Amino acid sequence: MRKFVAHRLKSLITSNPPHHQLSSSSTYYYTSRLARFLSSIASDPSSMASDQSTPPVTAASLNPKVLKCEYAVRGEIVSLAQKLQQDLQANPGSHPFEEIIYCNIGNPQSLGQQPITFFREVLALCDHPSILDRSETQGLFSADSIERAWQILDQIPGRATGAYSHSQGVKGLRDTIAAGIEARDGFPADPNDIFLTDGASPAVHMMMQLLIRSENDGIFCPIPQYPLYSASIALHGGTLVPYYLDEATGWGLEISELKKQLEAARQKGITVRALVVINPGNPTGQVLAEENQRDIVEFCKKEGLVLLADEVYQENIYVPEKQFHSFKKVARSMGYGDKDIPLVSFQSVSKGYYGECGKRGGYMEVTGFSPEVREQIYKVASVNLCSNISGQVLASLVMSPPKVGDESYESYSAEKDGILQSLARRAKTLEDALNSLEGVTCNKAEGAMYLFPRIILPNKAIKEAESLKKAPDAFYATRLLNATGIVVVPGSGFGQVPGTWHFRCTILPQEDKIPAIVSQLTEFHKKFMDEFRD
Amino acid sequence: MRKFVAHRLKSLITSNPPHHQLSSSSTYYYTSRLARFLSSIASDPSSMASDQSTPPVTAASLNPKVLKCEYAVRGEIVSLAQKLQQDLQANPGSHPFEEIIYCNIGNPQSLGQQPITFFREVLALCDHPSILDRSETQGLFSADSIERAWQILDQIPGRATGAYSHSQGVKGLRDTIAAGIEARDGFPADPNDIFLTDGASPAVHMMMQLLIRSENDGIFCPIPQYPLYSASIALHGGTLVPYYLDEATGWGLEISELKKQLEAARQKGITVRALVVINPGNPTGQVLAEENQRDIVEFCKKEGLVLLADEVYQENIYVPEKQFHSFKKVARSMGYGDKDIPLVSFQSVSKGYYGECGKRGGYMEVTGFSPEVREQIYKVASVNLCSNISGQVLASLVMSPPKVGDESYESYSAEKDGILQSLARRAKTLEDALNSLEGVTCNKAEGAMYLFPRIILPNKAIKEAESLKKAPDAFYATRLLNATGIVVVPGSGFGQVPGTWHFRCTILPQEDKIPAIVSQLTEFHKKFMDEFRD
Repeated sequence: MRKFVAHRLKSLITSNPPHHQLSSSSTYYYTSRLARFLSSIASDPSSMASDQSTPPVTAASLNPKVLKCEYAVRGEIVSLAQKLQQDLQANPGSHPFEEIIYCNIGNPQSLGQQPITFFREVLALCDHPSILDRSETQGLFSADSIERAWQILDQIPGRATGAYSHSQGVKGLRDTIAAGIEARDGFPADPNDIFLTDGASPAVHMMMQLLIRSENDGIFCPIPQYPLYSASIALHGGTLVPYYLDEATGWGLEISELKKQLEAARQKGITVRALVVINPGNPTGQVLAEENQRDIVEFCKKEGLVLLADEVYQENIYVPEKQFHSFKKVARSMGYGDKDIPLVSFQSVSKGYYGECGKRGGYMEVTGFSPEVREQIYKVASVNLCSNISGQVLASLVMSPPKVGDESYESYSAEKDGILQSLARRAKTLEDALNSLEGVTCNKAEGAMYLFPRIILPNKAIKEAESLKKAPDAFYATRLLNATGIVVVPGSGFGQVPGTWHFRCTILPQEDKIPAIVSQLTEFHKKFMDEFRD
Repeated sequence: MRKFVAHRLKSLITSNPPHHQLSSSSTYYYTSRLARFLSSIASDPSSMASDQSTPPVTAASLNPKVLKCEYAVRGEIVSLAQKLQQDLQANPGSHPFEEIIYCNIGNPQSLGQQPITFFREVLALCDHPSILDRSETQGLFSADSIERAWQILDQIPGRATGAYSHSQGVKGLRDTIAAGIEARDGFPADPNDIFLTDGASPAVHMMMQLLIRSENDGIFCPIPQYPLYSASIALHGGTLVPYYLDEATGWGLEISELKKQLEAARQKGITVRALVVINPGNPTGQVLAEENQRDIVEFCKKEGLVLLADEVYQENIYVPEKQFHSFKKVARSMGYGDKDIPLVSFQSVSKGYYGECGKRGGYMEVTGFSPEVREQIYKVASVNLCSNISGQVLASLVMSPPKVGDESYESYSAEKDGILQSLARRAKTLEDALNSLEGVTCNKAEGAMYLFPRIILPNKAIKEAESLKKAPDAFYATRLLNATGIVVVPGSGFGQVPGTWHFRCTILPQEDKIPAIVSQLTEFHKKFMDEFRD
């Protein structure tokens, strides 16, 4: 029996490829995973059975890349939150809070944000086109939503919204998106470069699948990063090569850091294939300066890296001094054409002011690859046939919203501005509140949907966490959840400079709830510090 | 320069794992792929550049698993069809046919099948719930669609159809689906076993990702098979272990064949992890007898295999003597409970009488795994956050359609029966037509959406194909397309007994087009045989 456990552990442990390094905080991570694994096999007698009666599939006999993958934004802390929520439903009053406030994930409509009316009108009409020429429809839907639905239906072969489309998405919708990109950037965009996807995540997976051959292939990722990247790299068996954002300069992306880490990775025998840049930053909220973006483009060009530009928060900018510039616009404005630099831009309908996460729409704009590489990208896209048509329609709508003069323009603008202005106020209020806490510093959320405060935890708290085999920030986040119902994600899920501790908190709770959140957080933090202050 | 090409070829060729074997027809396949690759690098001067100016990513430097993957139903023949379609648009009359008839893929609505009204009503209302209590809505939508939309909205936390759901899908929708499975099977189903997915394809990929550790892990697949399986196994780096369906007994699945192939695979050092069964069959159209299913369950139990049951055509049965039985029902009726046999059933909204391919809805019902394995499945699901909510809603609708007494029941039944009865007639007409052709034999389509006729090709045709570096059936299919505009998929894309040739043709063109298709096909085949008859 001991031999069997040893075997299973070995297979779990060797799943950690030699070159993987996130930060020393990942030690906590794996320790905690190992502890959970050991306790799971101890508590499950069937998994300790002799080989004869071992079930065909055990956790230890799964793909080790899957075992290695972690996805913090839906990890342990969310499972605990779901349990507490069930407790509250079964026994109201069983916890010192009335509801769970999910600040773990950028999911605006789950917290009460209302969808943009025009977008939903068009989606409904495309779902049920047979009402388009009914007289009642005129009374229920805006004139421009009816007109847009007709336009979209005419772009879909046979008006068949229930048919698989071209594997890159409906050509007419890609035309609309390309026109939207051109209007945004002032440079041409080609509909044949657009691959519509079920949200940005499958697009990221697709690029990782194409680029990663083995653990000797590295993908350059910011630390802190959005855990989709570490998860996808792990699932595809590559190595995450970290570059650290500089918290002291507002999560600055320094070219010297890129050079240093690239050199270090190459010395370890890693072929670094691509650079991931998340702009505006997730979880860090910074918006890159155009000058900085030029340096990044130049660096990728010089070092032969694919630039993977996560630009899903392009509409979420909250400070007047910053603007979004797509990497493609920056590269083109530097004189680099389509043949000069391989560049993939990811966009999603889940973010922006629309926040349509449940629709799973998005696209990637793929430029700078040879026709043979493009053929391979197309092939991978075709294996999943196509992305969902409603998501495709919505992706075309967010890139081509109502214009001045359209019937919906005024209400659309009011809805959009209302959401973005409120998000900016929420970001500022939460940032100020966090900065007023003992031992907490928080950079401004210039964009995106998150704050990523640093907490200087007392040694006593760190020791307590260690004794519980938890990362100190996971310990803090668990305590916060148990005390207030507020769900945040520990910084160790995103990566951070070793020895520093953070958490990610969305700015998405509805504005009338923010004061209560601030006071609960403040009260909790004070008590926590009182309990553990050195 | 020669050295560079040699290097690229080597990396392409070694991407072919040692144990992979489909049939000798795959030789044609790879030969043709190699030929295309060679011609592509010959015609692209940039890819022949010196190492200094080599672009960061070339086809040869992509993940070899991706290079190896093929997906015939959207492969070369479809690219040719798209080109011909563009020709026809630009120059009507440029080809000896007026339109391209896509019989390559099960995409009913692309060929004119109308969606089920009730389903679309509910989808539209869920997309734009603010019209639910408007008086005009009563005139536009059926009463039960309004009622159902309210029910569904009440199942979604915060009625937020634009929010990410639980990673397995909205709990209330899973309750509905589980109830539908119970009603179908007469055995309990647990909503916690349901994982909603963007169509069945991502679910299949998910299971492959979990089960395949290396090329030494094998997945047992029928030959002929739906190429999603070979593509997914290639992408995940495993080995497809074939078992041949017996064409002579109507594509019978023989346990003796399973035993023989399992033994052969094991002798090669392959760990066979799972058995894929497609029932009703794709591309083969057979419906398994319950007795046969029992033997398959017993075989999986004895040999320790996960049973992956592709049951997406469960509503597509065209012969009165056959019925669909889910493998879960069969296993439970044999007395095997949830702990006894790991079993995954795949279902999709793309097939059945609804054919809602563009909605990308589906689910897998996962039973018989330990909690630790389930946790890993959940984790992989969570990395993509959730499937699209419209697809989730639709999956709940197809498992819980209108009932006797509901306002929509009569029209719903008429739509459903009309589609299924017409499909049965189309299957029969096409089957008879194929069987009347010289050298063609075609088994009955008892279910699914395809016919998979065998063609005895004259030696002269085979030689001509070889000289063009094409599989003989691909040669036939290309000739058919160029002569008639009818797109079918060569049998070599699905696998077949070496030396036999087939093609897959859907039964989906609208019924009024079938006579013309039959006469075009007949005329083409006669001419083809006249040209090549030995």
